[in-house]
Amino acid sequence: MSLSEKVLKGDIRSAARLMRDIDDARPSAIDDLKKLYARTGNAYLIGITGPPGAGKSTLVDQLTASFRSRGKKVGVVAIDPTSPFTGGAILGDRIRMNRHATDDGVFIRSLATRGALGGISRSTSDVALVMDALGMDVVIIETVGVGQDEVDIVKAAHTTCVVMVPGLGDDIQAIKAGILEIGDVFVVNKADREGADRTARELSNMLDMRPVLEGGWKPQVLKTEAQRSAGIDELVGEMLAHRDFLFCSGRISNFLRERNKRHFIDILRDSLYKQAMEYIERNGTLDKVLDDIASAAIDPYSAVEDVVAGMLKRG
Amino acid sequence: MSLSEKVLKGDIRSAARLMRDIDDARPSAIDDLKKLYARTGNAYLIGITGPPGAGKSTLVDQLTASFRSRGKKVGVVAIDPTSPFTGGAILGDRIRMNRHATDDGVFIRSLATRGALGGISRSTSDVALVMDALGMDVVIIETVGVGQDEVDIVKAAHTTCVVMVPGLGDDIQAIKAGILEIGDVFVVNKADREGADRTARELSNMLDMRPVLEGGWKPQVLKTEAQRSAGIDELVGEMLAHRDFLFCSGRISNFLRERNKRHFIDILRDSLYKQAMEYIERNGTLDKVLDDIASAAIDPYSAVEDVVAGMLKRG
Repeated sequence: MSLSEKVLKGDIRSAARLMRDIDDARPSAIDDLKKLYARTGNAYLIGITGPPGAGKSTLVDQLTASFRSRGKKVGVVAIDPTSPFTGGAILGDRIRMNRHATDDGVFIRSLATRGALGGISRSTSDVALVMDALGMDVVIIETVGVGQDEVDIVKAAHTTCVVMVPGLGDDIQAIKAGILEIGDVFVVNKADREGADRTARELSNMLDMRPVLEGGWKPQVLKTEAQRSAGIDELVGEMLAHRDFLFCSGRISNFLRERNKRHFIDILRDSLYKQAMEYIERNGTLDKVLDDIASAAIDPYSAVEDVVAGMLKRG
Repeated sequence: MSLSEKVLKGDIRSAARLMRDIDDARPSAIDDLKKLYARTGNAYLIGITGPPGAGKSTLVDQLTASFRSRGKKVGVVAIDPTSPFTGGAILGDRIRMNRHATDDGVFIRSLATRGALGGISRSTSDVALVMDALGMDVVIIETVGVGQDEVDIVKAAHTTCVVMVPGLGDDIQAIKAGILEIGDVFVVNKADREGADRTARELSNMLDMRPVLEGGWKPQVLKTEAQRSAGIDELVGEMLAHRDFLFCSGRISNFLRERNKRHFIDILRDSLYKQAMEYIERNGTLDKVLDDIASAAIDPYSAVEDVVAGMLKRG
């Protein structure tokens, strides 16, 4: 039986191996994904984002427990910051959610953010596809941070939950404005802290200024204390309400087309980048280019034009 | 006189226009950059990074004042988080460093992080080149956040300064580990806050575990209170010590080669991406691909292979 067939039969070890192959950018991973693709699209994808220190991991842990109690299988893709030095993920699977470690209905996978190859949003989508094919009913994608990468990653989710926390400091207005527009549900976590009501009110006020299209979704601001699992059921209820909205309003088809477009372009970009790296590392092209730039024989912009003309069918 | 000639003569308005052209990805910008390139390489580039709330903007403001008092012209490239909704930068130039607004020796430019086109590290490098060509002695690159994007951006700087702050919360260990390896100088800002000594000590301990190559640079941890400009001169001194180390140890040539390599690959990747977007938008290729994916006639991985085969001289 092929790896993809085993994944479709629900074999967790095969899924883990395929995810490793995706991480390592093995050509065989593409073949497996091709075979899986037609059998995906059943999982409900939830994106969780927000600044460091907002308690996202604890919240994801609680959401996992809540979906499990509803009989759902839950996959978690946690995007971990990468050590630029070792290339490895910093947090790792092992310190995450120990209490679900022996539960076959929970599959947790950390993805390291490897800048060089770009493509973190692409690997996230691919790993979520594998979890989908494996039979996970819910796939939670958790990002660390609030940059453009994170925005790109959570766009793959049906429902995006933005997690805030009281009193994060100076840059918070900027952060709020940056992620305000991508959230379908907003959470003020650590709601027992001073200033929680004010943060929730500020968020609501800012959301009131966000334009809502006719018949569109209006995001709510909820309060949670993930540590003692307060507010979790309300949060799950709001997420499911958003999912129902997507399907009942018919917006799901447009959402899926946009998601497919981004995924297709991500794969295309990665593929061209890979081809380009192979091209410039062939015959010492890169070394020669760097020598020429160092000696001011050429500027990098002209050097790129030469390489692109050499690669493409027409200039 | 061409735009690039005017920039080389120190014309600020021409520099601002060229930066706009770079932002808008105008083809003419590439021509101007080609002409400028040979005349760059004089500026000292400083990268400032660290988590939101660390007071980086205030620190940059103080560093600017300090270099100005030494008679140096200072350029500042501030990477602002972009609103995914409006596409515009959130903080903007206007709220930054008002006190330098009337100083001709200071040139401030905010760059929006536009995820879709990637290339934020590329635009940052290009904008820093323009400031260099304009005659700025020091160019400070300030990022918001601590993700892989930020790491890539500050790699262009001769000296990278990582700014931390006491008591940032749960994820701080992860952040520290992630940016520990890219810093040449470490700063605990807001050093009047409780826990500053502990944060500095923790940082020092973690840095002690970082391997130092024979004859390598050993980063120090300094304390600042940017608000009342305490510790700024010491910080500038440490930065200049690192710059001297780069040049005197001979490491500068290797540094420049690595930087040129990243810049070249960034430009190459952006160029291929642009070509790919033009290719798939020609003759309705993208729409057809999305129709085929939606109807399950093809998977996105196979669709990309078809497009790449169509674009490249050999599959």
